[in-house]
Amino acid sequence: MSSRNDTISGEAIKEYLDWLGQIGSDAEGGVSRLLYSKEWIEAQESLKKLFEDEGLNVQFDEVGNLFGRLEGTTYPDETILTGSHVDTVTNGGLYDGQYGIIAGFLALRYLKEKYGAPLRNLEVVSMAEEEGSRFPYSFWGSKNITGQAKTEDVQGIKDFEGTSFDDAIHQAGFDYKQHPEHVRTDLKSFVEIHVEQGNVLEKEDIPVGIVQHIVGQRRYTITVNGEANHAGTTPMGYRADAMNAASRMICAINDMAIAEGDPLVATVGSIFLEPNTVNVVPGKATFTIDIRHTEKDALTNFTTDVEAKLQEIAEQIGVAVDIDLWMDADPVPMNQHIVDVMQKQCDENGAHYKLMHSGAGHDSQVIAPVIPTAMLFVPSHKGISHNPKEYTSPDHLAEGVQALISTLYELGYTE
Amino acid sequence: MSSRNDTISGEAIKEYLDWLGQIGSDAEGGVSRLLYSKEWIEAQESLKKLFEDEGLNVQFDEVGNLFGRLEGTTYPDETILTGSHVDTVTNGGLYDGQYGIIAGFLALRYLKEKYGAPLRNLEVVSMAEEEGSRFPYSFWGSKNITGQAKTEDVQGIKDFEGTSFDDAIHQAGFDYKQHPEHVRTDLKSFVEIHVEQGNVLEKEDIPVGIVQHIVGQRRYTITVNGEANHAGTTPMGYRADAMNAASRMICAINDMAIAEGDPLVATVGSIFLEPNTVNVVPGKATFTIDIRHTEKDALTNFTTDVEAKLQEIAEQIGVAVDIDLWMDADPVPMNQHIVDVMQKQCDENGAHYKLMHSGAGHDSQVIAPVIPTAMLFVPSHKGISHNPKEYTSPDHLAEGVQALISTLYELGYTE
Repeated sequence: MSSRNDTISGEAIKEYLDWLGQIGSDAEGGVSRLLYSKEWIEAQESLKKLFEDEGLNVQFDEVGNLFGRLEGTTYPDETILTGSHVDTVTNGGLYDGQYGIIAGFLALRYLKEKYGAPLRNLEVVSMAEEEGSRFPYSFWGSKNITGQAKTEDVQGIKDFEGTSFDDAIHQAGFDYKQHPEHVRTDLKSFVEIHVEQGNVLEKEDIPVGIVQHIVGQRRYTITVNGEANHAGTTPMGYRADAMNAASRMICAINDMAIAEGDPLVATVGSIFLEPNTVNVVPGKATFTIDIRHTEKDALTNFTTDVEAKLQEIAEQIGVAVDIDLWMDADPVPMNQHIVDVMQKQCDENGAHYKLMHSGAGHDSQVIAPVIPTAMLFVPSHKGISHNPKEYTSPDHLAEGVQALISTLYELGYTE
Repeated sequence: MSSRNDTISGEAIKEYLDWLGQIGSDAEGGVSRLLYSKEWIEAQESLKKLFEDEGLNVQFDEVGNLFGRLEGTTYPDETILTGSHVDTVTNGGLYDGQYGIIAGFLALRYLKEKYGAPLRNLEVVSMAEEEGSRFPYSFWGSKNITGQAKTEDVQGIKDFEGTSFDDAIHQAGFDYKQHPEHVRTDLKSFVEIHVEQGNVLEKEDIPVGIVQHIVGQRRYTITVNGEANHAGTTPMGYRADAMNAASRMICAINDMAIAEGDPLVATVGSIFLEPNTVNVVPGKATFTIDIRHTEKDALTNFTTDVEAKLQEIAEQIGVAVDIDLWMDADPVPMNQHIVDVMQKQCDENGAHYKLMHSGAGHDSQVIAPVIPTAMLFVPSHKGISHNPKEYTSPDHLAEGVQALISTLYELGYTE
């Protein structure tokens, strides 16, 4: 198919991102486009017009996922879907989510112009919600596409201003699915392109990542109960110092994670002490652990070892430890066939790529168990994500779109 | 002098503590008696009446320190002073400060009744302020007694409700000293009895502590600057994790303190992370260190070693560290002659005692450089301090008063 110098320029892609990103642009220089907000409606309506102007067959589903279809000639009951989510976090950047929608749209337009109608339908989707930034619920878009959304899970929830999900969806002109368990039978593949949100591609100077797994995650809250005491009058030997114990635990977690090696990551991201005063030995420390791995067994084994280590340290220091596992999500493998297609296309085009995993969550992890799915990544400058400073160079944007075009061509235009 | 079974009962002492403690009793079951407050005035006036009713020669100084004197017969220009501070922290307990006043008063009464007039004046003092709980200024009482208070240091300060020190002192009916540098020439000794505020005496089952030193303190704020990154997408090898670095520093500080041994103590009492979120590698950690020792050289050497260790760990982990030393107070030795007197009296009375240091700050550390000073301690249950739950058993209260009586007898009634 197309050679590498016959593609869409990064600058052209960036113009579309700027265009979409000014819908919801906020006072802090970022993009804030929360589910069913005024800005969200404007973005979906603008994308609808963009898709229609390009001659795509456009429709919303009941909940507000937007689809733009290029009809296939030979297999009208088979659809290759691409896209990502239109919502952002509060004060997000120009790339997370919307790059996948713009890339999908530009890929379809390019393919149509260059090759005409595909054998299978090619469809770009602007999914309603992924971030969980307005309501305490994530993946509303992809869960509805794949029949995993449950109306009762969202009907009672409210946003930070007290608006109910119920009011928000209706005021935006949408509604719950009448048959939420329904899944379109024509969806044969889903391909999502997204910014990496990490620094691996940039550090290794590779423009494209082909995702093989989305990591599983376990999240813990660890509570260390020692004894608060006067910092001046309590000898070291008479202390049950929760901060001292927590520090030894955090060192151990990091040491174990480094020893285990990639793709495992373990993070202690937050800690709170009581009473948290300069001249009092801390009586209580509460910290979180976030552990991720691409393989379920490895994740389980590692977390089991960590739990044992925490108990061991607590006994050594003479404090009590409470271990609360409150998130346990299995790793999700990407579809091997689509990964093979991506890899073959990159090889044939001489594209520099890396087989990797996603350490972040994506719509693809919700869709993959239901529809064959794979992901492409482009570099995130310094790994910055969920921030107005997120940045991917135009060249990398273009290389990503090129890999997406090649993949969609192979899935949509060949037998 | 008096034998051990010829003393004041713990229950009697406790009654006086309850009486004084109900002045300023707060809704949380504690005592809140802040400098120049309504409760503080009532407490000082009540003590004035108590002292007068006992026939003591009573007077306030200009700032509100209250003195009750038993006149000496032979050396009218020599005064042995005892007492402590009448103010409390917000929601404090029944013992901190006021035990030293009540003990001093009961000791004087006992000595007068048993032995009549002393050779030297014996004086009990209820000092105006020690805790620094209302205004950002500590030791207002003892600094005025010893000529160390500077009017200009307090004139501009305000309490948490916006009331100026200036208004507070005048509304309470007191004023700044006309000659703040003036120190009474008759003050030959100061003896303070106080609750330990630590758990050493209780752990070692010893009723009386004789204080040889009050520790010096150095307090630091340590800022670790790493790089905030996505917890899922940033491999362990690509991190500059401020929490990981801080944990290694805190472990090292504790290890070094344990290796150094008593009387050194080092405490990391507070920590703050940024952004302090479960799924973000911490970019910044700010924690405090409180280091205390009875010997200046040992304190200096240890803190120098700690500072070097923090730099070393920062380099190892690849983060920046900023070390801010914001408190540096030298240790204060107690007067050896008075310590010897205390020890001799305890030995003669068969009292079980421990030569120890104070890890907390006291009026005695302000007074000691100007007037020969020493301190006695009684046990604090579980080391609890600055809390309504602070507790010392009646037996221990009585053993402390007994040691104080013996000491004052030796200083006031013998040549």
